[in-house]
Parts: sequence; C-alpha cells; structure tokens
Amino acid sequence: MIEAIGGTAALLTTFSFLPQVIKTWRTRSASDFSWIWLFAFALGVFLWMLYGVALGSLPLFAGNFVTLSLVLMIAGIKWREDKSG
Amino acid sequence: MIEAIGGTAALLTTFSFLPQVIKTWRTRSASDFSWIWLFAFALGVFLWMLYGVALGSLPLFAGNFVTLSLVLMIAGIKWREDKSG
Repeated sequence: MIEAIGGTAALLTTFSFLPQVIKTWRTRSASDFSWIWLFAFALGVFLWMLYGVALGSLPLFAGNFVTLSLVLMIAGIKWREDKSG
Repeated sequence: MIEAIGGTAALLTTFSFLPQVIKTWRTRSASDFSWIWLFAFALGVFLWMLYGVALGSLPLFAGNFVTLSLVLMIAGIKWREDKSG
C-alpha cells in the first residue's frame, strides 16, 4: 500500500514532465532553459535517486531515474545547440 | 548522512521551482498553465508527501509540502483569472 502511493506519486510527477520533453524533442530547441536551472534540477533529481537507493525505495529510485534521463536529454539538446550556435 | 542527501535533494528541486512561482506571483497570470498539468502535478506532489509520512522521511514530507503550497498558489491565481475572465 505504501509503495503503491509512492509509485503513483512517481508516475504522476514524472509524466507531468513528459509534454515538456516531447516539445523539446520535436523542436530540438532548448535555449529557453537556463543552465543554472538544468544543473540545479538535475543534481536535485540525482540526489533524490541516491536517497531512494539509501532508503531502499523503488518508487523514489525509479521515478527519479526516469526524470533524470529526461532532464539530461533536454541538457544534451541545449548543449548541441550552444555548440552549433 | 542519508537525511542530508534527502534534504539537499528537497532544497534543490523545491528551489528550482521558485523562479516560476515568483514570475507567476508578479504577473498574476497563470493562463499558460493547463488545469490538467496543475491537477496531475499537485496530486503527485501530495502523494509524495503522504509517502514521506508513511516512510517517516522528513525531507520527502517537508520538500513536497513546500512544493505543494507553491503549486496551489499558482492554481489559485489561475482560478481567480478564470473567474474574472
């Protein structure tokens, strides 16, 4: 029951981020994201993931693993853009 | 140590949301947020908060309590806007 609450929480907050990721993927444009925000958010999500490992919580680990992958994809698009700009 | 990781994670992901909240508060405009996103995200954050209570995790509870308050503030501004529009 507790893990179901955590799992639903993970699905909702991770899926909330998907429309943004799809938009960034389609437009291949991420210049409106600041590096400071991307870095702080990615580090925060990474630490949540570690915290999930430390607590042995699958929802915390898995949800933040997926979110981190999505944030890094946006960062990758921004990086390519900066390089070619 | 484990709680310090969780606490830093909570500070980073919560503070990442602050520039958005400050912008919405200043402009008093939240029409570009969708109700579906606000509802799904608020529910997700609420469930993380419950999950934090169930696990006895202060960082999970406190971080998501603050984030939920900020999301509800944005929802409140959007609600007033919808009513007066």
